[in-house]
Amino acid sequence: MEIVLLSGGSGKRLWPLSNDNRSKQFLKVLKHNNEYESMVQRVYRQINETLKDVNITISTSISQKAILEKQLNNNVDIVCEPSRRNTFPAILLAAAHLYLNKNVDLNDTITILPIDSYVENTYFENLLKMDEIIKNNKANICLLGIKPTYPSEKYGYIIKKNKIEFKEKPNKELASEYINQGALWNGGVFCLKLSYLIDYLKKYIEFNNFEDVINNFDKLEKTSFDYAVLEKESSIDVIEYNGCWKDLGTWNTLTEEIEDKIGKVITSEDCINTSVVNELNIPVVALGLKDIVVATSPDGILVSNKEKSSYLNNYLDQVTDRIKYEERIWGKYVVLEETDKKLVKTLYIDKGKNISYQKHTYRDEVWTVVSGKGLFVLDNEIKDVKENDVLFIPKGTKHAIKAITDLELVEVQLGKNFVEDDIERYEYNWDEI
Amino acid sequence: MEIVLLSGGSGKRLWPLSNDNRSKQFLKVLKHNNEYESMVQRVYRQINETLKDVNITISTSISQKAILEKQLNNNVDIVCEPSRRNTFPAILLAAAHLYLNKNVDLNDTITILPIDSYVENTYFENLLKMDEIIKNNKANICLLGIKPTYPSEKYGYIIKKNKIEFKEKPNKELASEYINQGALWNGGVFCLKLSYLIDYLKKYIEFNNFEDVINNFDKLEKTSFDYAVLEKESSIDVIEYNGCWKDLGTWNTLTEEIEDKIGKVITSEDCINTSVVNELNIPVVALGLKDIVVATSPDGILVSNKEKSSYLNNYLDQVTDRIKYEERIWGKYVVLEETDKKLVKTLYIDKGKNISYQKHTYRDEVWTVVSGKGLFVLDNEIKDVKENDVLFIPKGTKHAIKAITDLELVEVQLGKNFVEDDIERYEYNWDEI
Repeated sequence: MEIVLLSGGSGKRLWPLSNDNRSKQFLKVLKHNNEYESMVQRVYRQINETLKDVNITISTSISQKAILEKQLNNNVDIVCEPSRRNTFPAILLAAAHLYLNKNVDLNDTITILPIDSYVENTYFENLLKMDEIIKNNKANICLLGIKPTYPSEKYGYIIKKNKIEFKEKPNKELASEYINQGALWNGGVFCLKLSYLIDYLKKYIEFNNFEDVINNFDKLEKTSFDYAVLEKESSIDVIEYNGCWKDLGTWNTLTEEIEDKIGKVITSEDCINTSVVNELNIPVVALGLKDIVVATSPDGILVSNKEKSSYLNNYLDQVTDRIKYEERIWGKYVVLEETDKKLVKTLYIDKGKNISYQKHTYRDEVWTVVSGKGLFVLDNEIKDVKENDVLFIPKGTKHAIKAITDLELVEVQLGKNFVEDDIERYEYNWDEI
Repeated sequence: MEIVLLSGGSGKRLWPLSNDNRSKQFLKVLKHNNEYESMVQRVYRQINETLKDVNITISTSISQKAILEKQLNNNVDIVCEPSRRNTFPAILLAAAHLYLNKNVDLNDTITILPIDSYVENTYFENLLKMDEIIKNNKANICLLGIKPTYPSEKYGYIIKKNKIEFKEKPNKELASEYINQGALWNGGVFCLKLSYLIDYLKKYIEFNNFEDVINNFDKLEKTSFDYAVLEKESSIDVIEYNGCWKDLGTWNTLTEEIEDKIGKVITSEDCINTSVVNELNIPVVALGLKDIVVATSPDGILVSNKEKSSYLNNYLDQVTDRIKYEERIWGKYVVLEETDKKLVKTLYIDKGKNISYQKHTYRDEVWTVVSGKGLFVLDNEIKDVKENDVLFIPKGTKHAIKAITDLELVEVQLGKNFVEDDIERYEYNWDEI
């Protein structure tokens, strides 16, 4: 069985924990066996717990590759879109990858699902039933419908009459009516044959190999799979899932599933329905609060009535600060302080990884090695560095560092224009050393 | 006219803005002519606006001297207690200072008042009336009584019957009764002759000069002036002040007088009776809050129901982090990050000031000069330093720096034991250079 997990784009609905570079599915806030796991880790674990002999491919963008590998311990197959173009192109690209790179049989079934649904294990058991339906040619596409628990205005509805009908985000009255007719929420899970997707792909792109598909990726309409495929298909079946299903995409929904206190948090006994997630290294004291979420990260601090937190996006245009925390392919960094004269960061470089060979025009940099061993290059001169070494990098000099063991550096940028743009990148061949 | 302002000790009732080293009276949160001023600055300004030809002396501890000079532009007379021993010793020491150091006539009147009352200018005009009463020998002590606005259980009451009676913190019923009898709140303002205080002082200490008083300061009872003097005196008069009087000592009272948003703050339109004071350099977003105070500083984050904020002290025992922001005699510092392997600070050293010559046993330090010019000493070798210089200070080496112009440094401590204790101080004679 082939599973394709769609790992969607970034967003700020869980700001300040999520930002343009850090998607909500990677936040480690869900507790399992006394450790925190992310939504990605939870879904991946649940699939492996419930389905045997399953191949998992994750469809995402290059910006998420490193963190996916880190969170899933590298043993995962990832297909990266050259650009973000909605679910229709993403799913066809994943199909091309399975067909052309992994030689999956055109007759095999593929099940596509979002990576960020918060569900019970029985959700995944239903995928087996969907697989049976497609395998036995009982429908061209099989969907997973979620039994509604209330007349939500946020979701799409699947109505199973003579033919399947789809209704997007109805008002409350209509939603109630649909539910009375037995409608289900559309959970964004599709099961179908690989051939079905490859036939679609051929309509848009002529290809002999995967590279042809990548190079012509922008020929695929920037639209959703629901709109481009589902609504035009008449042979659809639906399997019903009757269990917990949440998208945890807002603070209001997320805080229902996480612990009330995460991080350095002190609360008074009279706090009611209040959640504090503190990613900063300073304490949060919360007194006498009701229905409040507090979330902190190096990017900022949110204090919101839980219900009102869904309006967060409307206010984030006013936040124009640079991102203070970022996970990169080589590790991660945190901005400790930025003023007009300096920018102070801690850099964590993973063993074996390196920062690209680069130079800056407007700023000097001072690197203090806090721990670990590495190789430091300054204008093609290479030297070993270790904890307590201090490296001065004048503006205009090319420099890079490679971690021999996990490396921690404090970087002080001095000068002006503390922007990621003040960087010119060069090739450096670490293997020649 | 001689005014003595009592600048009291530190406390955490306005945590995280106030801490053991930063008293509430120095927080610049009160707006005046589009600039922020502290309680100290406000009272000092108001006295100078309302009273002409007045000499002001501030009685405080050495730890507050630098910040008082900074906030009041150096032109203020300060008398420092050798140790903190309550208002009775503090007031007698101030009297000794006026008599022995400033040659104030024993027959002159002294008016003593707290530095942190939030009042209108008319409050100070009453001091002239009190001065008249003492000058004309109509009473030995004249007090300022504040017209009560509600039956508070927190204050002391002055009841003017045949003789003056004092009642401390009555319950609500008693307080109402007192108010019906015309009682006033005791505002902690005393007017009397210098001779009165010096006579008291002579009962405890034999002195020929001010140093004798300092050296015998611990012979003065550790008690309040109210208890030691006022309650034993029968010749007392009271002047009534009928106007705004607040102690601004809790978030609930302080937020009534300050702007709703101070610092980088974004709030939704539906926030009601909500105040956000953000001293951090990252944004606070507040959505849909009612009756809430949010306060942030490098020391921590408070989110509290306003009324419940008076219980803050009960929870701060759980905050065991080191202080992250401190104003020192040479300037100030902010801790940017502390982990078990490093501590990163920004140091701001005022022009002409220096850090003491010192060495550390357990940590190396790296100083990066962000801006300014200074003199750096390392094991008795002195050199000029300026912006972009990087100074490595190995453990065990003596070092100091003096600011020629205002200096900003980033300090990275490496090693272990990042405590203020890991320091041995030495003499260094900067004048010999």
